[in-house]
Amino acid sequence: MSRADLVLAGCRQLLTCRGGAPKRKNELGDVGLVENAWLASHRGRIVYAGDERGFRDSVRPVPGAETVDCREFVVLPGFVDCHTHLPFAGSRAEEFLLRLQGWTYAQLAERGLGILTTVAATRAAGEEEILRLCLERLDHMLLNGATTVEAKSGYGLSLKDEIKQLEILKKAAGLHPVDIVPTFMGAHEVPPEYRDRRGEYIALLLDAILPEVRSRGLAEFFDVFCEEGVFSAEETRRMVRAAKAAGLQVKIHADEFTDLGGAALAAEEGARSAEHLLAVSEEGVRKLASSATAAVLLPGVPFFLRLDRRAPARALIDSGAVVALASDFNPGSSMVSSMLFVFQLGVFTLGMNVEEALNASTANAAYAAGREARAGRLEPGLQADALLCDIPHYAHLAYDLNRHPIRHVIKNGAFVVRDRRRV
Amino acid sequence: MSRADLVLAGCRQLLTCRGGAPKRKNELGDVGLVENAWLASHRGRIVYAGDERGFRDSVRPVPGAETVDCREFVVLPGFVDCHTHLPFAGSRAEEFLLRLQGWTYAQLAERGLGILTTVAATRAAGEEEILRLCLERLDHMLLNGATTVEAKSGYGLSLKDEIKQLEILKKAAGLHPVDIVPTFMGAHEVPPEYRDRRGEYIALLLDAILPEVRSRGLAEFFDVFCEEGVFSAEETRRMVRAAKAAGLQVKIHADEFTDLGGAALAAEEGARSAEHLLAVSEEGVRKLASSATAAVLLPGVPFFLRLDRRAPARALIDSGAVVALASDFNPGSSMVSSMLFVFQLGVFTLGMNVEEALNASTANAAYAAGREARAGRLEPGLQADALLCDIPHYAHLAYDLNRHPIRHVIKNGAFVVRDRRRV
Repeated sequence: MSRADLVLAGCRQLLTCRGGAPKRKNELGDVGLVENAWLASHRGRIVYAGDERGFRDSVRPVPGAETVDCREFVVLPGFVDCHTHLPFAGSRAEEFLLRLQGWTYAQLAERGLGILTTVAATRAAGEEEILRLCLERLDHMLLNGATTVEAKSGYGLSLKDEIKQLEILKKAAGLHPVDIVPTFMGAHEVPPEYRDRRGEYIALLLDAILPEVRSRGLAEFFDVFCEEGVFSAEETRRMVRAAKAAGLQVKIHADEFTDLGGAALAAEEGARSAEHLLAVSEEGVRKLASSATAAVLLPGVPFFLRLDRRAPARALIDSGAVVALASDFNPGSSMVSSMLFVFQLGVFTLGMNVEEALNASTANAAYAAGREARAGRLEPGLQADALLCDIPHYAHLAYDLNRHPIRHVIKNGAFVVRDRRRV
Repeated sequence: MSRADLVLAGCRQLLTCRGGAPKRKNELGDVGLVENAWLASHRGRIVYAGDERGFRDSVRPVPGAETVDCREFVVLPGFVDCHTHLPFAGSRAEEFLLRLQGWTYAQLAERGLGILTTVAATRAAGEEEILRLCLERLDHMLLNGATTVEAKSGYGLSLKDEIKQLEILKKAAGLHPVDIVPTFMGAHEVPPEYRDRRGEYIALLLDAILPEVRSRGLAEFFDVFCEEGVFSAEETRRMVRAAKAAGLQVKIHADEFTDLGGAALAAEEGARSAEHLLAVSEEGVRKLASSATAAVLLPGVPFFLRLDRRAPARALIDSGAVVALASDFNPGSSMVSSMLFVFQLGVFTLGMNVEEALNASTANAAYAAGREARAGRLEPGLQADALLCDIPHYAHLAYDLNRHPIRHVIKNGAFVVRDRRRV
């Protein structure tokens, strides 16, 4: 018999997303639905997920265990947001307004607007301020269902400021129930002071910042923006190999606006994920499909930037790639911080069905963040991270577009959101 | 001096949308912004909107007047949702899920799914149940900023059931602070029992139901679904003329999926609005531009149905048409009930800028609902219907896509939402 200190009893529907991760093709269409289901956890880990009979036969609640009547709830794994640029300061609302009024990128740049605004604001801001912003944003993400959040540096672009961002993430992880997966992304952009000597910036990244990040244990992943005008495929390959040699796993911002062969490069280099993929080639799709590299789609970006182009979600799924969804939360191209909304964008703008978008936001997103052994599914041994939604059927997660279905959030077996409020 | 019983003092930004309605072309780009502004009302009507000096010179608060410190708030007119199918029973979530899984319309129809599901459920439901649903939906709409809501019958499709829907709207209007603009839309569909004798259904509509609606004073508007397979342009013209003769104003569901010349017909017949317009022709755009007929765009529909097609918002605005936005809230093609989200869809999916989408959701939407003398702008003489948003600049209404900016809602000079909760 397993012991349990938390029991979710008689869930109307339980979406386990069982069967491991990553999921491909038809596996993505199966959310592991169990009706009238029981979920039990002990010390934050799931010990049982299934029908009542199996629960009665195999689980014994400890004295004082909490039992939650879940007959009114659809229960699913907490979302994993596997691509965010969480730690930044400053707002780009002014730039946003001007862009909508028809200002060109050149006009905006003349006024000093764009990503460098955020770099300047993040460098100038104190640690406490950025930490406060991160915690407040994590609260909001949690209220919208994310229980694990990947977070990238990349607005510092100097030794001091990249380390500052990553140290803030470490502090935030200690203060907030959401799990943070830290990614070092000094290769987000070439900073203005290195514009005419990009080789020196790459040397700084690889020879000074990367070792410091490693020795302090501040990142699990290394990420590069492989894009025309940012880092070339050749530069990307070089940096990725150095990061792997230093013991980091790799992610690549690939084929966002231009097809530089980033997806293929990610697959060849064994990157954990290739992200964006608005401009991915057919060859890139094929290479991803036959690799272990996840295709992380970020539907908030084309929505926020009002682009017609979309990542080819159907082609990726149908050819067998590991498709995940994430927010790309950042102040310039995706002020989207709700994984509930990202899931809905997967359904309404990427041609995914509800089941595919759910698995892409949970099991496969956990895989893309390297956390498939801990999060993204409701299976014994994994963290008890669950969303309790007061809806009659999981279809309403997308169908009731403007309703907020998440009533309670459980993180590591404890209520962290109750009645839609942080506790 | 004007007397005032409510004063919004020192609003960070006040968006008055002043200058009357309807607004065309460049007028749509001007939200009548006043910074550090004062708004005053008396017995539910606005008596002043402008700067502090003018307020001091012309307004005298009565004893016991409420003064609200608005230095942290951006204040704008309550949204007007000028196209909804509010009173219905039943859910179409099952149909939604199957459609996303690839079921064809024929397969769904075989299983008895589609609009007739809603007709059957609405006919079968008791008045109390539909009334309860309407009140609950109105609460949700109000929390998302709508203070005036147009609502159509059209799921009854019989004398008894159309009257039932409209009587429910009348009751709801008496019980809920949101203003309801009732529309008789028996011409939403030909009911199944009249499929082989559509002429008889039109006769029933015009000779029996319309006079009853009129004699009971249950509707301000008459609306027809002019679409291939529903009502032809010729049938639409005949019904519209009969409705006008009976003293109702007219709206037309025009050129949604097929260009039947519905927009031109609406302009020719002096309809208050032509709605949908996904398939409107260039001639239709021109006719609307030179008419007083509002072009009501419903961006929730192509989003919810995952269509590539969009209404030509830019062409309509640039050619001088009166463009408004609305939700088309209904269980089959737009489970969108938040005007905040509709405004954002206007920005992110229709190519409108923030200012245009705001005027289209307030001043012009009020015009489309025939309420421009009462709602949609913050000008003396109009209803004090206002949204108090805790954001630093109105750009954040769209920029912070997943944040809910509406903290308080004032309806007819009284708080009806306080701290994001209905009071």
